[in-house]
Amino acid sequence: MIRIGIYGYGNLGRGVESAIGQNPDMELVGVFTRRDPKTVSAKAPVYRAEDAISMQDKIDVMILCGGSATDLPVQTPLLAEHFNVIDSFDTHAKIPSHFTAVDEKAKKGGKVGVISVGWDPGLFSLMRLYGGAVLPEGESYTFWGKGVSQGHSDAIRRIEGVVDARQYTVPVEKALSAVRSGENPVLTTREKHTRECFVVAEEGADTARIEKEIKEMPNYFSDYDTTVHFISMEELRANHSGLPHGGMVIRAGKTGDGSKHTVEYALKLDSNPAFTSSVLCAYARAAYRLQKEGKSGCMTVLDIAPKYLSPENVETLRATLL
Amino acid sequence: MIRIGIYGYGNLGRGVESAIGQNPDMELVGVFTRRDPKTVSAKAPVYRAEDAISMQDKIDVMILCGGSATDLPVQTPLLAEHFNVIDSFDTHAKIPSHFTAVDEKAKKGGKVGVISVGWDPGLFSLMRLYGGAVLPEGESYTFWGKGVSQGHSDAIRRIEGVVDARQYTVPVEKALSAVRSGENPVLTTREKHTRECFVVAEEGADTARIEKEIKEMPNYFSDYDTTVHFISMEELRANHSGLPHGGMVIRAGKTGDGSKHTVEYALKLDSNPAFTSSVLCAYARAAYRLQKEGKSGCMTVLDIAPKYLSPENVETLRATLL
Repeated sequence: MIRIGIYGYGNLGRGVESAIGQNPDMELVGVFTRRDPKTVSAKAPVYRAEDAISMQDKIDVMILCGGSATDLPVQTPLLAEHFNVIDSFDTHAKIPSHFTAVDEKAKKGGKVGVISVGWDPGLFSLMRLYGGAVLPEGESYTFWGKGVSQGHSDAIRRIEGVVDARQYTVPVEKALSAVRSGENPVLTTREKHTRECFVVAEEGADTARIEKEIKEMPNYFSDYDTTVHFISMEELRANHSGLPHGGMVIRAGKTGDGSKHTVEYALKLDSNPAFTSSVLCAYARAAYRLQKEGKSGCMTVLDIAPKYLSPENVETLRATLL
Repeated sequence: MIRIGIYGYGNLGRGVESAIGQNPDMELVGVFTRRDPKTVSAKAPVYRAEDAISMQDKIDVMILCGGSATDLPVQTPLLAEHFNVIDSFDTHAKIPSHFTAVDEKAKKGGKVGVISVGWDPGLFSLMRLYGGAVLPEGESYTFWGKGVSQGHSDAIRRIEGVVDARQYTVPVEKALSAVRSGENPVLTTREKHTRECFVVAEEGADTARIEKEIKEMPNYFSDYDTTVHFISMEELRANHSGLPHGGMVIRAGKTGDGSKHTVEYALKLDSNPAFTSSVLCAYARAAYRLQKEGKSGCMTVLDIAPKYLSPENVETLRATLL
């Protein structure tokens, strides 16, 4: 049995907890939280985050479920010296420096740290790699959605007069069709995705001003065609309480004889955090096995042979999957 | 530069030849054939197959382009002792014994042999593995087509009175929809695919008898709903001369919280051999690098970390793909 610890117990931590139950070779040893453990109820004992390191001998892999902004840059290197670790660090520009920090500590401790695991970065990164390698003459396209962007929803919530909000990223059908047809179009940000916002405003708030602030918000909305709907809290709760997401990675290219090919990988996810958690567990298995084989240091999904993800032995995989 | 040899010069061999031209880190050193080399014209010197072993020092990876029935079971182990080798062996039931034979010889020679490379087995095998690992509670489905099955076309050609034939495997739209919806249906062979045959008969041949023989042919057609069209040679040449193929691997499952997810990988290929050749080249790069790192023995796509397939270094891959 692979003994798992969960470090950080929000949406993602709870997702990992239930994903462990689907993997017969894993057991949850403990949940580590910055809150008062007495106030947290989980399917395993709950410990204070600062007590984690003292449990080094009881946990094979620590799955970090904190946020990329401030939690993981500190926590993953810290814990990588003492545990095999997995995180879902997704601040793209900082991945190289995060890698270096985790690599140093993991090597020092003789552990394996796998960073930036999930579906993007993660499975989508894999598909961009495989697509580019098997069709070197071509273009790769990534579309996200239809799904809830938590970052964009949060950005709307910070506007004065907004009580709650949900933002959907929606791929543009016309752009998708052009890509699938093998035309290899050059697409602007605006041409690839639209943004649809469902906003609950305070009573008496100036909705015209809120809508303008959303649509003009740099980085988040100003480069997109954005639609804003003001709805009631009841409607938000009834119709927009989930966190569905997904998307597509498409590689379209030509082989040397001039014939055209498209490779498309598509995810349709009812719950973004539940699926991400499930991917984290598969890579926890890989980290455990790789460290048992004597490996140490930081890795990403690009460094890990597929066989390490499956609970089956490789002879069975060869006989059943090839 | 990775110095490549091509062993066997049919559709697949010519595909590898043009794929090498798309990979700037590869050069074609020679083509090896059982025909008289004087009768074969290629983009590199043509040698007799039996002279291959004497060129051990000039070739880094030999890509085997023979057939799975009789060529590869002999050739891949033979050459694996002297070269890093890649093949597209696809006789499913014999993969474990082929693996053992290649593994023994490759280890003896300190070389890496990668077998069963292509899209199925190959990329589709990878997708079945990733899908099962990230959604352990679910079902995997593989659909092939719409595309030309060369084995089925050949089977029709063996019937008396048939001059030429092309058989398309076609996924059943209703089955696909059911799988995509997450219903996880149990599907019979007949429910998943239909078979559509375009047949050129000899003048005066008994087409009713030919149609009956096709539809009742065990293993190939009797378990399917099969349609037979008799056409002229001109029509066959005009409309059915290509070898398009493709298909889908779909994993549909639930995470521990009960939410549903589907993962779909789809290929649309204008030319089956051209695309397969391109995949062979990407894995030739991997074999070369793995052997340089000191690895030896037989491997499959399941054993090879994605990063080995790309000509880019891993720092660039991390910065651009994650």
